[in-house]
Amino acid sequence: MKTLSTNRAFGGTQGVYSHASAETGTEMTFSVFVPDHPPGATLPVLWYLSGLTCTHANVTEKGEYRAACAKHGIVFIAPDTSPRGADVADNDSYDLGTGAGFYVDAVQQPWAQHYRMRSYIEDELPALIAEQFAVDMDRQSITGHSMGGHGALITALRNPGRYRSVSAFAPIVAPGEVPWGEKAFSAYLGDDRSAWREYDAVALIEDGARVPALLVDQGMADDFLTGQLRPHRLAEACEAAGIDASIRLQEGYDHSYYFVSTFMADHVAWHAGRLD
Amino acid sequence: MKTLSTNRAFGGTQGVYSHASAETGTEMTFSVFVPDHPPGATLPVLWYLSGLTCTHANVTEKGEYRAACAKHGIVFIAPDTSPRGADVADNDSYDLGTGAGFYVDAVQQPWAQHYRMRSYIEDELPALIAEQFAVDMDRQSITGHSMGGHGALITALRNPGRYRSVSAFAPIVAPGEVPWGEKAFSAYLGDDRSAWREYDAVALIEDGARVPALLVDQGMADDFLTGQLRPHRLAEACEAAGIDASIRLQEGYDHSYYFVSTFMADHVAWHAGRLD
Repeated sequence: MKTLSTNRAFGGTQGVYSHASAETGTEMTFSVFVPDHPPGATLPVLWYLSGLTCTHANVTEKGEYRAACAKHGIVFIAPDTSPRGADVADNDSYDLGTGAGFYVDAVQQPWAQHYRMRSYIEDELPALIAEQFAVDMDRQSITGHSMGGHGALITALRNPGRYRSVSAFAPIVAPGEVPWGEKAFSAYLGDDRSAWREYDAVALIEDGARVPALLVDQGMADDFLTGQLRPHRLAEACEAAGIDASIRLQEGYDHSYYFVSTFMADHVAWHAGRLD
Repeated sequence: MKTLSTNRAFGGTQGVYSHASAETGTEMTFSVFVPDHPPGATLPVLWYLSGLTCTHANVTEKGEYRAACAKHGIVFIAPDTSPRGADVADNDSYDLGTGAGFYVDAVQQPWAQHYRMRSYIEDELPALIAEQFAVDMDRQSITGHSMGGHGALITALRNPGRYRSVSAFAPIVAPGEVPWGEKAFSAYLGDDRSAWREYDAVALIEDGARVPALLVDQGMADDFLTGQLRPHRLAEACEAAGIDASIRLQEGYDHSYYFVSTFMADHVAWHAGRLD
């Protein structure tokens, strides 16, 4: 692991790191905020998965999570959203290829070699974090924004017992039913829609997956609300499944980091209550 | 005034606006955050002047001021740092010309036509803000970062009674004594150093100017600490003048927005106590 930068912030250390990923076959960059803590102590972890076009940098600069994470003693980890590099397959559109890994392991060409974000987020990066940082991996929670909200939901649903809680900001909740997901899953996974269900939060819940606690904020002035996000589909699935879900519709808020940062402290505090 | 964007954030409106400035002869962009308030109410104002290379956008995206301004009911205004445009004199270096207005009215060529940031910040923009926003201009305070900390200090020192309080993050306190200021003032103001004193906080204090209350945070890991910033010069001048100044040296913090954002809520709360 290489340290690209560290900055003191909010009584802790905001770092940016990279490592050679075996899963993606590329150098992967991520950021970690570690509040100050006594020698030998370990802290709980909150994962944050980012949305389309983003790297670790967007939330690191604009997410306003450090004050809350310092207050609650939580390590905040922000991975990248895809592999990157000259030999990585890409596409001219913003919603496929670089910046648009959708947290799946691709099986179709030309994507299968590098686009292994599921295994990277579920296995490889957690192992590195456990080795390199003062973290208690028995106390993890996960959140994310938009495509990253989708990532947080499916990752938690597929790994029962690993995350104490899951939350999301304006998540894609049923990618198999909306244009972003249909485009990405067709390319990465192929045309057999039954193979998409393990990467679709609503389908996973319909198929029996559960999470212990769920918090979602969704802006009502979000341009993607009805076409891509459709929070009512998650509400319906949670209600049918008996999942304890708080899905909050926020009047006037859009899809930007002005929205995410507004509710970030709420989400961190909510996770903190489950990470004790 | 044109509205370039508005986003709902932290129970208020973060806007970005532009207008044709008579002072600079250019279109000038600025951002304003207005917390929600009852119809007819007016709110106090906190000005934030930005540092070298910055526009309004840096603090608007990374400053983490909205939560505190919403809590205390304060309008936050972030102007640009210089005129910009194809016909505006510029320079290849980052510390002269575009992004480096130093909050002076230039009198030397080729700068004098457009580089009128003193009059813009002191007169033209406040008049526009008073006309366009729900503000109480009898309750103003001012802050800033680095070159903008210098701007906040000199603007407050030159306008007794206008600002209830002044604070700064890592300000240039004695520009006439350090390379940044010597380069900029030589270009904008000419070689007669006596003309520099009205733009130099330490010199203004030595010459009798006063402010009612002053808060400064300075990171001790700031690369510019000894060469450009020299907070001890401000401390000495305030002590000699009997100015109530709190100059806090923050171990481990650098010159970045990780530093500024860490102490932003403190500064907003400190100003709020003087804006009641």
